[in-house]
Amino acid sequence: MRHISFTTDYGLSDAFVAVCHGVALRAAPGVRIIDVTHLVPLADVRRGASVLADAVPYLPEGTVHVGVVDPGVGTARRAIAAETAGGLFVGPDNGLLLPAADALGGVTAAVELLDETTARTFHGRDLFMPAAARLATGARLAELGPAVDPGSLTRLAVFSTEAGEAWLETEVRSVDRFGSLQLAATATDLAPLGSPVFLTDADQQPIVVPRGDTFGDVPPGELILLIDSTGRAAISVNQGSAAERLGLGAGAVVRLES
Amino acid sequence: MRHISFTTDYGLSDAFVAVCHGVALRAAPGVRIIDVTHLVPLADVRRGASVLADAVPYLPEGTVHVGVVDPGVGTARRAIAAETAGGLFVGPDNGLLLPAADALGGVTAAVELLDETTARTFHGRDLFMPAAARLATGARLAELGPAVDPGSLTRLAVFSTEAGEAWLETEVRSVDRFGSLQLAATATDLAPLGSPVFLTDADQQPIVVPRGDTFGDVPPGELILLIDSTGRAAISVNQGSAAERLGLGAGAVVRLES
Amino acid sequence: MRHISFTTDYGLSDAFVAVCHGVALRAAPGVRIIDVTHLVPLADVRRGASVLADAVPYLPEGTVHVGVVDPGVGTARRAIAAETAGGLFVGPDNGLLLPAADALGGVTAAVELLDETTARTFHGRDLFMPAAARLATGARLAELGPAVDPGSLTRLAVFSTEAGEAWLETEVRSVDRFGSLQLAATATDLAPLGSPVFLTDADQQPIVVPRGDTFGDVPPGELILLIDSTGRAAISVNQGSAAERLGLGAGAVVRLES
Repeated sequence: MRHISFTTDYGLSDAFVAVCHGVALRAAPGVRIIDVTHLVPLADVRRGASVLADAVPYLPEGTVHVGVVDPGVGTARRAIAAETAGGLFVGPDNGLLLPAADALGGVTAAVELLDETTARTFHGRDLFMPAAARLATGARLAELGPAVDPGSLTRLAVFSTEAGEAWLETEVRSVDRFGSLQLAATATDLAPLGSPVFLTDADQQPIVVPRGDTFGDVPPGELILLIDSTGRAAISVNQGSAAERLGLGAGAVVRLES
Repeated sequence: MRHISFTTDYGLSDAFVAVCHGVALRAAPGVRIIDVTHLVPLADVRRGASVLADAVPYLPEGTVHVGVVDPGVGTARRAIAAETAGGLFVGPDNGLLLPAADALGGVTAAVELLDETTARTFHGRDLFMPAAARLATGARLAELGPAVDPGSLTRLAVFSTEAGEAWLETEVRSVDRFGSLQLAATATDLAPLGSPVFLTDADQQPIVVPRGDTFGDVPPGELILLIDSTGRAAISVNQGSAAERLGLGAGAVVRLES
Repeated sequence: MRHISFTTDYGLSDAFVAVCHGVALRAAPGVRIIDVTHLVPLADVRRGASVLADAVPYLPEGTVHVGVVDPGVGTARRAIAAETAGGLFVGPDNGLLLPAADALGGVTAAVELLDETTARTFHGRDLFMPAAARLATGARLAELGPAVDPGSLTRLAVFSTEAGEAWLETEVRSVDRFGSLQLAATATDLAPLGSPVFLTDADQQPIVVPRGDTFGDVPPGELILLIDSTGRAAISVNQGSAAERLGLGAGAVVRLES
């Protein structure tokens, strides 16, 4: 049997998560559920997409990934299931799932899940988890609903990176528990820049940031620019928070010069 | 083997939850534990009872539900195990378990768990989880202690709803992660009212609230009265918090008129 | 197969924990992971060590305990795996693991894990969890790296207790979710003192604290000195927070006299 992974903005204080676990366990006894996180900020589809995309390459091959960050529940947005070379996805068609699907090779087929229940407010319980349980127990994608064109699936705006001669402007993709600013720029984007880089924003003098491989390459409390565990550029503070130090968060644009 | 569900106010920062998992796994190797929530506000028996009652109808049939929100630990309050048509319950006799037991058909038999350990502060570890592990591995309820009259079990005051001609006064049962106010009133209670309803409280002008089936039936930021995923009336804001908008929380009484 | 327990400061909002679960499940299909906590305050090795030591005596025998609270990641601090009579340990050699290892009989053998990956920032994923999965599936400790002298492992300063005639000065080891102050002193340390004790600190008049066995031995809102569920002395408030009442936290020293 396939595993199910589960990523939502349901929080950990209500019964929502356990109810969905229960629905899966009733329909697919013995299925194993891997909770990615349920603390995606409310309705923050972009953040949910980032966390899910970070997780899926490391989860067991063939896992059915259920994501529910869904401010449009009960509206005309589609509910979908999609297939990739590395696993399956179930959730709303609002952009949440595609970055993770791309990380597993891209969507090769997709279907629309038709809402046949009367309840219209809790699709995790009534629509997505039942579909995931069917896939986990061997149903083929095509059994779940009518095919939709993978190219028609909703895609979030990509986090942007622009580069010139010896400069780079790149968006902060997310801030993690350690206060590291993960940038949209990749190791490749960063290659032309030397070390140190100069970080600038509208309000302040350039800040010198040395480059390194790991936090410990600079003394505690110092900024460092490194390639993080997902392969993206990140600005960190050794044993501190770069987000607090720089006053920057997800969506901010930083300019790096060398 | 039966599953065990686990609902407490233990929080997620200490070893309490893992210790109880360990006790269960030692006594019942392979048992599967479904964590409902461990973030019930400290000693808030009524909130714990609501969350547990919301969860149990969806958990696997026959699950042993352990609940520990227990401000009276170490006092004369009884420790109990109880049987229903749909599952078993273990915890303090302080009202925590009964709404959930009612949701599974009501208590058909109950026993008192006699505390035979010297430790008197951590009943989840020393009393409740060992009892649950025994039930999960096939012990009959009667083996766990002397029978007690199901009618003698402690019952919390019921959340109240009063209705007249074209009006309803009903208590807020809980507030969820999304800021929805779940009311004690059911779909049946709500049936005589038209749409929109007028929501009043002592301090303010009536607020017009349209009725609908799902958040998306009103524009983002607007109030809506709907039947939520548990079958109860709820006041929500599409992509917002009704609790914040109205300044109301659990235990508040709202009056709806049509 | 052995179980894996998992204790970190990774938080619950990012993909870190799920990524490590995935790595373990890919390398050791079917392995069962018991999350102790992922809310150790950032880089608080001492707190992580306390929580892990509290948990391990109750987890299944032979479990592989992975702990990652690691402000020195990417520096010269060693990564280790260690064996005790009751279970195995994997993590940084910064003192995090030893109190728990002591609780299972003390380290009988240890090896250094050599970092063979290029990633240098996420040892939980790249080093510790892969090693734990190997141990869970039957590898012997010696297969994981070169032996190191157990006596050379880093040990945190022990929480201190000093005693004289009818007095005791003891450090607050931790504060739990319920606001109880867990002291370094044990039941044995406490034995010479009578009841009530007088609690003093530099700033205030002695406070009278009765001794008892359980919270309910004093009225709600009253202080009590008891032996907690881990066998250590603790100062609690029945249905309240001793930490708030006394304004004390982890690392504070309290003086008890009788």
